[in-house]
Amino acid sequence: MSFNTYGHVFRVTTWGESHGPALGATVDGCPPGVALSEADLQVWLDRRKPGQNRFTTQRREADAVEILSGIFEGVTTGTPIQLMIRNTDQRSKDYGDIAEKFRPGHADITYWQKYGIRDYRGGGRSSARETAARVAAGGVARAALAQLVPGLSITGYMVAMGEKDIDRSRFDWDEIGRNPFWTPDAEAAEAWAGYLDGLRKSGSSVGALIELSIRGCPAGLGAPVYGKLDTDLAAACMSINAVKGVEIGEGMAAARLTGEANADEISMGPDGPVFSSNHAGGILGGISTGQEIVVRFAVKPTSSILTPRKTITRSGEATEIVTKGRHDPCVGIRAVPVAEAMAAAVIMDHLLLDRAQTGGQRGLIGG
Amino acid sequence: MSFNTYGHVFRVTTWGESHGPALGATVDGCPPGVALSEADLQVWLDRRKPGQNRFTTQRREADAVEILSGIFEGVTTGTPIQLMIRNTDQRSKDYGDIAEKFRPGHADITYWQKYGIRDYRGGGRSSARETAARVAAGGVARAALAQLVPGLSITGYMVAMGEKDIDRSRFDWDEIGRNPFWTPDAEAAEAWAGYLDGLRKSGSSVGALIELSIRGCPAGLGAPVYGKLDTDLAAACMSINAVKGVEIGEGMAAARLTGEANADEISMGPDGPVFSSNHAGGILGGISTGQEIVVRFAVKPTSSILTPRKTITRSGEATEIVTKGRHDPCVGIRAVPVAEAMAAAVIMDHLLLDRAQTGGQRGLIGG
Amino acid sequence: MSFNTYGHVFRVTTWGESHGPALGATVDGCPPGVALSEADLQVWLDRRKPGQNRFTTQRREADAVEILSGIFEGVTTGTPIQLMIRNTDQRSKDYGDIAEKFRPGHADITYWQKYGIRDYRGGGRSSARETAARVAAGGVARAALAQLVPGLSITGYMVAMGEKDIDRSRFDWDEIGRNPFWTPDAEAAEAWAGYLDGLRKSGSSVGALIELSIRGCPAGLGAPVYGKLDTDLAAACMSINAVKGVEIGEGMAAARLTGEANADEISMGPDGPVFSSNHAGGILGGISTGQEIVVRFAVKPTSSILTPRKTITRSGEATEIVTKGRHDPCVGIRAVPVAEAMAAAVIMDHLLLDRAQTGGQRGLIGG
Amino acid sequence: MSFNTYGHVFRVTTWGESHGPALGATVDGCPPGVALSEADLQVWLDRRKPGQNRFTTQRREADAVEILSGIFEGVTTGTPIQLMIRNTDQRSKDYGDIAEKFRPGHADITYWQKYGIRDYRGGGRSSARETAARVAAGGVARAALAQLVPGLSITGYMVAMGEKDIDRSRFDWDEIGRNPFWTPDAEAAEAWAGYLDGLRKSGSSVGALIELSIRGCPAGLGAPVYGKLDTDLAAACMSINAVKGVEIGEGMAAARLTGEANADEISMGPDGPVFSSNHAGGILGGISTGQEIVVRFAVKPTSSILTPRKTITRSGEATEIVTKGRHDPCVGIRAVPVAEAMAAAVIMDHLLLDRAQTGGQRGLIGG
Repeated sequence: MSFNTYGHVFRVTTWGESHGPALGATVDGCPPGVALSEADLQVWLDRRKPGQNRFTTQRREADAVEILSGIFEGVTTGTPIQLMIRNTDQRSKDYGDIAEKFRPGHADITYWQKYGIRDYRGGGRSSARETAARVAAGGVARAALAQLVPGLSITGYMVAMGEKDIDRSRFDWDEIGRNPFWTPDAEAAEAWAGYLDGLRKSGSSVGALIELSIRGCPAGLGAPVYGKLDTDLAAACMSINAVKGVEIGEGMAAARLTGEANADEISMGPDGPVFSSNHAGGILGGISTGQEIVVRFAVKPTSSILTPRKTITRSGEATEIVTKGRHDPCVGIRAVPVAEAMAAAVIMDHLLLDRAQTGGQRGLIGG
Repeated sequence: MSFNTYGHVFRVTTWGESHGPALGATVDGCPPGVALSEADLQVWLDRRKPGQNRFTTQRREADAVEILSGIFEGVTTGTPIQLMIRNTDQRSKDYGDIAEKFRPGHADITYWQKYGIRDYRGGGRSSARETAARVAAGGVARAALAQLVPGLSITGYMVAMGEKDIDRSRFDWDEIGRNPFWTPDAEAAEAWAGYLDGLRKSGSSVGALIELSIRGCPAGLGAPVYGKLDTDLAAACMSINAVKGVEIGEGMAAARLTGEANADEISMGPDGPVFSSNHAGGILGGISTGQEIVVRFAVKPTSSILTPRKTITRSGEATEIVTKGRHDPCVGIRAVPVAEAMAAAVIMDHLLLDRAQTGGQRGLIGG
Repeated sequence: MSFNTYGHVFRVTTWGESHGPALGATVDGCPPGVALSEADLQVWLDRRKPGQNRFTTQRREADAVEILSGIFEGVTTGTPIQLMIRNTDQRSKDYGDIAEKFRPGHADITYWQKYGIRDYRGGGRSSARETAARVAAGGVARAALAQLVPGLSITGYMVAMGEKDIDRSRFDWDEIGRNPFWTPDAEAAEAWAGYLDGLRKSGSSVGALIELSIRGCPAGLGAPVYGKLDTDLAAACMSINAVKGVEIGEGMAAARLTGEANADEISMGPDGPVFSSNHAGGILGGISTGQEIVVRFAVKPTSSILTPRKTITRSGEATEIVTKGRHDPCVGIRAVPVAEAMAAAVIMDHLLLDRAQTGGQRGLIGG
Repeated sequence: MSFNTYGHVFRVTTWGESHGPALGATVDGCPPGVALSEADLQVWLDRRKPGQNRFTTQRREADAVEILSGIFEGVTTGTPIQLMIRNTDQRSKDYGDIAEKFRPGHADITYWQKYGIRDYRGGGRSSARETAARVAAGGVARAALAQLVPGLSITGYMVAMGEKDIDRSRFDWDEIGRNPFWTPDAEAAEAWAGYLDGLRKSGSSVGALIELSIRGCPAGLGAPVYGKLDTDLAAACMSINAVKGVEIGEGMAAARLTGEANADEISMGPDGPVFSSNHAGGILGGISTGQEIVVRFAVKPTSSILTPRKTITRSGEATEIVTKGRHDPCVGIRAVPVAEAMAAAVIMDHLLLDRAQTGGQRGLIGG
């Protein structure tokens, strides 16, 4: 991860800001011969698209993706794939005094401190709109993975909204796509709907916990010691707007365990090693074990709220700010498809890296 | 972070394994003219060195660092600085059947699955010995930072051992260097000593929570959107052996907050903006605010324990394993100087990156 | 240089192929606050634009560049600048049997061998159309350089067409922009016009020698030993379509000299060291001396000719091919603005890299 | 190529200077399971070693390489391979006034201008001693290539010393290793011996032309448009000390040809396409064709000569300099094994990159 690019050999560069004419992603290094159409990508973009229900920003964006290069006769050519999404609802409005005030909890103050530039129209490059480009790029990674590792699945879901956790005994994979929160717990979905309505009406916001499950990932992906698979997954999540913490497997709770409790015992299954538990989250020494990979991250509540907050202007004067406008009461909802997309790109990148170094010839166990 | 190198323009490549003749780091991109001697680096290595007290592995290593290049007449030349540390106690022993058994919670199984190579002597490249090289490289970053940003300080400390947290009302910066656990709470240190003695005698191990505080960091370091300062700090921590979770500021708890609770209000102080709280952990939109930067991470308990654990051999047969040998009952202790070193390298790298792009000319507030 | 990206901190990624809807470049790492408009870039694109006279391909492209991101209120923001150029004349035609035949001297055979993909419509990613994106990106580098190093100039010109060299005694900087060949020798321009007309009418093509002169470049840019300024300039030129050789200063002729003849003697001028000659081409040990930087490269003749050539089809059958269509009889002409653009990006990148590592504080001589 | 590292996934970082205690290379990304010993590398180092005959510097260096990491039980583990070479003859001497004078044609002036550091002892990092590390690293690439592409060979040889060219009608592959100049022309070797003796005795020096032949390279290595195989080979050669020009295939002479003369006609051979000529030098569109790859480069004469040259001191005063000491009258000789090593690393890197992206599945012709 560096600058506006991530990945080593499967490399994604995103560009564009919330109120410009368009944004997009360049995907470089995709294997040739992968079947890919705009419709294949649109599926994923539609999951992240704003304005789909009352729980996300009411900004209306079609988020229609155009493929401008890298595809010929329906398949990838191995050259850069340019994905462009037009901004269509970058509403012209009176920004009034907001243009001069910094928003507590927002990046406008640090962008100003770094660049001496202030794009007061809506977050500029720090806007969550940038993540549409990630989702499009993740769609390319998904298409390539579907061809190279057919059994692999990447699923994100919300496990807590604010103080309200799901009940894991009600975990239902099929439920995830049936509610607006991408949660596997139908009862939680119902409770959260009421809770979030209240927050939305009062102009407040709330944080969330998201979990990613990657199943069917082959053993052997990742590399010591600064190219670890968990390091790259953590960086991928941490790079998403508003994320403040990332966990692999047991996560922060690993600090509380003893060695006996933490070590996942190993036995031999029909297709290779089987682990009695998964405190490791599917990764040991930075390399995948073949188990389910489990990543969890926390999204903070958006800073765009109606309660007045003390702040300063660019000239240093004390003032108050109220952020009206179209915002997400729980940005964690839309972080779910974004994180899936980032994970897809990371897995794809490591699959190619592993193929480069080892040629896919790995140490057998048993057999 | 990639492969065995981290950093963009201040770049560190580490090499070497636990039972080879030596290990080390190449530091590339250091500014010229920084005063640097082996003694300057040894200070930091001595903090990480094993065998200093009964709470860390009894392996005896001098961890004496040699500078092989990049220094002339006592200052850095701007060319690569090679730091070498000889392994002196890679004890020859009878590995017996351990050579054939995988250790639950250890990287030996994934290294085998990826590389088809098994260095049964002690972890090879996945050993915590690799971190000695990081500490040496971090010492170079510290020396350069001391010259470029004299007021900057980087301090790590333990805030929980297993279930036992410090009491933050007893936080004392001066205490950190006075106890073997790098904890700011003297009472906790005492309690932990007894607790860890018990674990050590029973051949068990325990996890820990470590916090990093970076004070005096200028505003404006970091970059959107994949070169965020918090992303790089998170990756730096996650790349350390046994780390399973990383937090910035409020961290995972940010998921539980509302927007009102999370937004750090801003007022004008004599030297620039001042924040009423620090939920952000000193970073907004991936860029430093000038506040204290706060990073926290969890270290799992080491998998080397005396309690028998079920496992398999390389040929897939079920067996049990007991890991004797010289190990740390709480590897979190030695993670403290390692994390400080990683943070120093990340800050140094971002300082140079910012100087490259903006020339240090930033947006003023007030004045 | 790697994949579809070049540069370390001033980084350009190009995308798009000759017969897709558009092509472009993402410029990442540009300093903030640089005044930039589409008109500023169009100036450079118009120099490379096809169809301007009878000596370049008759494909009609407006080559109108759109800036899609990274600019706010007329200046760069420090975030990625997306430059898009629509293809407007990717004429639909009957490719006939050309779709199945490999063209001698062309990349279609190697693209097929590598990717198993064959974009028979006109070169795909290997087409010279890709260089339009480089010229646009180079325009951004030029704008930034104009602000950071006002006295710097980058000028390319043709010094030989086929066997016909210019007469350096007639070298006139002002002549370069006055003839269709970017040559500083007015008499040569006249002779070449007739020569090239003949080749064009007979459906032949010819190579050319191009020289780049970079004046006003500060001393100290470049870095040992794999980030040398001359290495990066050579790579930049070699990456241009059809280039087969690159020289710095004396170039290949340096092999013929003795040490006495080659060493540029040094004396002290009013503004620093002055060299009695410039065999070095302005670069010593990979670092600029402050003298004029001189780079020279050879462009081969295009493989698109009317004379039948023996070749094979995709199924391996022997056949002949004649390449009709709209092609450049001397592709070297349009390589001139492309090479200037590449050089601008390289110099800009090294300026930022040098600022990162040394802060611009360099060793003084005298004073 | 960047900083002190080259390669994308097979990555080499060199370190060390001419008068420090040691120098070396870290090779990262080597496939696991490659048989490798110090003796395997020493073979290549002995070819570059100084002081072997009267035609190279009389500095006496054993150039004995130690492998400090990355090998276990005789094979590579997939982790970084550290190669160290002790400097043993960095003779202490009286540098006298040379310490204050810049040497015309040498990097000491630009290093001073960039870094404000002056290692007057013998070139520091810009010394040709750095190339010993490249040769060691190239030996690792050779060992890996021998396993992955058994039929591949990389051979360098001198084709001109000063004005004296070889006669290609006398080209004999077996002669290359039989004379001190690595030339395939036995008569040239004899003539050059006398010529160089004369130059050596008079304290002069001379340039040389070196050619690299890479045979047995699979088709499909390289990538558009900034990761071209020829771009990387050119950069690899240009990064070698004293190199001023690089050519692929026809090279600079391609500028003189017409399209008919330049296009290598294609027919079908028993193992794939066969070309009637090789103006392309085995690379089209940046990707290998399967033909012999031909690279040529020019080495300038060393600046260390006995004839007094005008120069200035660090304080800007005019003076003269005579460079006594142990130097190579024709540095081109030792550039031969260095260039071979660089080419081996480039080919290895591109082999892994190609395996990453395409999995080695390529478009078939015929069959």
